[in-house]
Amino acid sequence: MQTIRVALGERSYPIHIGAGLIGQASLYAPHLRAGKVAVVTNEVVAPLYLGAVRGALAAAGARSMEIVVPDGEAAKSWETLDRVFDALLAARCGRDSVLVALGGGVVGDLAGFAAAVYQRGVPFIQVPTTLLALVDSSVGGKTAINHARGKNMIGAFHQPLAVIADVATLESLPERELRAGLAEVIKHGFVLDARFVDWLEANMEALLARERAALAHAVRRSCELKADVVAADEREAGLRALLNFGHTFAHAIETGLGYGTWLHGEAVAAGMVMAADLSARAGLLAGGDAQRVSALIARAGLPVRGPQLSPERYLELMAIDKKAARGRTRFVLLEAIGRATLRGDVDDRAVRETILACGPQATASAAQ
Amino acid sequence: MQTIRVALGERSYPIHIGAGLIGQASLYAPHLRAGKVAVVTNEVVAPLYLGAVRGALAAAGARSMEIVVPDGEAAKSWETLDRVFDALLAARCGRDSVLVALGGGVVGDLAGFAAAVYQRGVPFIQVPTTLLALVDSSVGGKTAINHARGKNMIGAFHQPLAVIADVATLESLPERELRAGLAEVIKHGFVLDARFVDWLEANMEALLARERAALAHAVRRSCELKADVVAADEREAGLRALLNFGHTFAHAIETGLGYGTWLHGEAVAAGMVMAADLSARAGLLAGGDAQRVSALIARAGLPVRGPQLSPERYLELMAIDKKAARGRTRFVLLEAIGRATLRGDVDDRAVRETILACGPQATASAAQ
Repeated sequence: MQTIRVALGERSYPIHIGAGLIGQASLYAPHLRAGKVAVVTNEVVAPLYLGAVRGALAAAGARSMEIVVPDGEAAKSWETLDRVFDALLAARCGRDSVLVALGGGVVGDLAGFAAAVYQRGVPFIQVPTTLLALVDSSVGGKTAINHARGKNMIGAFHQPLAVIADVATLESLPERELRAGLAEVIKHGFVLDARFVDWLEANMEALLARERAALAHAVRRSCELKADVVAADEREAGLRALLNFGHTFAHAIETGLGYGTWLHGEAVAAGMVMAADLSARAGLLAGGDAQRVSALIARAGLPVRGPQLSPERYLELMAIDKKAARGRTRFVLLEAIGRATLRGDVDDRAVRETILACGPQATASAAQ
Repeated sequence: MQTIRVALGERSYPIHIGAGLIGQASLYAPHLRAGKVAVVTNEVVAPLYLGAVRGALAAAGARSMEIVVPDGEAAKSWETLDRVFDALLAARCGRDSVLVALGGGVVGDLAGFAAAVYQRGVPFIQVPTTLLALVDSSVGGKTAINHARGKNMIGAFHQPLAVIADVATLESLPERELRAGLAEVIKHGFVLDARFVDWLEANMEALLARERAALAHAVRRSCELKADVVAADEREAGLRALLNFGHTFAHAIETGLGYGTWLHGEAVAAGMVMAADLSARAGLLAGGDAQRVSALIARAGLPVRGPQLSPERYLELMAIDKKAARGRTRFVLLEAIGRATLRGDVDDRAVRETILACGPQATASAAQ
């Protein structure tokens, strides 16, 4: 087991990375309190790992209960959140309760936000079971639910007590979700670390074959990179915004198609290709480097083209995105592989060109 | 104008107290940002003060919008909160927006919680227009909405940028709400400051006659007392819980009757009489001091008896109260006028006796 520390003063916490961790009572024990422990998970994860987690909690001396929510992005809703509150209140969970978020990014965001606002805040432990959650949503304390008008619009910064990142859980992950998780791993390289991009180019086959050593290295390096950024900028005042590379396009794709049609990582993959294309159009990134972005994404088996969605619809959806400041949409662009910049001065025309150039093949052909 | 500072490190903020402040642009100007200012208020307050506030914001150079919610405790609901989010998103308010909470405790709690979680948190300015909001909800950063299973169950600690406490707004306050606000003023005395209780006993008629000097002193001393407690214990780990004197009974009354049947201050008034009675039964408080509590509350024209509600229902409702720890309901009890203590070891039988002794006159007579 390796442990990374996210340095956030009194809100600092450890990320434990290794295989077979979710059943280890000693990892939960330091964080328990007098009250109940409520494990929030979903219908797919519960049969696989809920028993091991509750067993570990019992061994650590905790009284636990379970709250099982539906699978999928649609669960990041007020309705599901209210079911969590209702279960907590019905079980008379007080402020000395602890929540455990057992599952992927959706469960982490939902349970984390529930913990942030239940009785004005109770602590929680993250037990991520997807690659996306391991490398992304479990680091940094961002929690949220969606609103009909936009993704992640209602939420809080709420740091966990600890993250128990068990790479053995990746063995049960569907292929499509493994690839979607790789999108965020790749993103950390593009934005922050050119050497990690070299490593990913050399090890993509090993990752797709789920070689444990390769997965463990990818998870660890991703968490380290993200933890450093979060430590420097917890509330996303500046640096942390760079981790949104590809996300302005991705959120438009997800909202435009309806949440869950594309996986988040798939939308981010296409969004990164678009952001790299836009970077090249803006004269910031060499054409060869933009090609390197799309080539690595393609090798991960991820989409390099956006869905059928008009430029007008993209622009409309992006305008409401939370990164829009003073009426202008801000984009994270690349200046080189491993170096990103936040720009609010991007011309709408260039954005339209990127959207058309990176749209579905059929549209691109028709436009020629 | 007098200014008190709530000392909370980087979250410190000023409370400006005086007459005619809500129209002063210079009080808003230091807190504005690049984005829009959304004034959240209710149907009753809007015709009285919204024009003055928006005028001041315009004079300070801000683009403002208004979000008018229904009057009353029922507005502290997810439905109303979602309408606030919807209006903010429809107007494309970004993270650089500022909210202004213009109204009483309900608007303050609702708008404050909206600010706490909209796009993971935007700042807000409190402009309280009721005595209750001036002396209580605008100091300390507690925000919340209600849940069907309990009051203030969903919320956050979110400190305002500033509080603009205009005592001139008290002149438009209905008599019943003035008295309800006095309940919290009196509470600060009972819990923290025997000399302030002496002052209140000497000046109750002046307060009820709305003499400006008396009101200004009461507001200022209440805010000072509460600000000191909040500065020492922002997250209510200990000391701050003492401000919940009377509130364990009060929340049961409010939930049991349905929110809004009794005003919060009315429920707190009866709750304080009950808590003082319980303090005497527990042998902590002299009988004469318990009488002094109910006498001052009676002189403020506030209820000194609870509503028709069975002891079993009280106990059930109190068990779910957020101050319940390890399955035991905790009560704030008095050891003397001006000195309180938090107790988790109170016998259910004593609580039942208090409830019966402080119930409606009819019940008390029937029991004799």
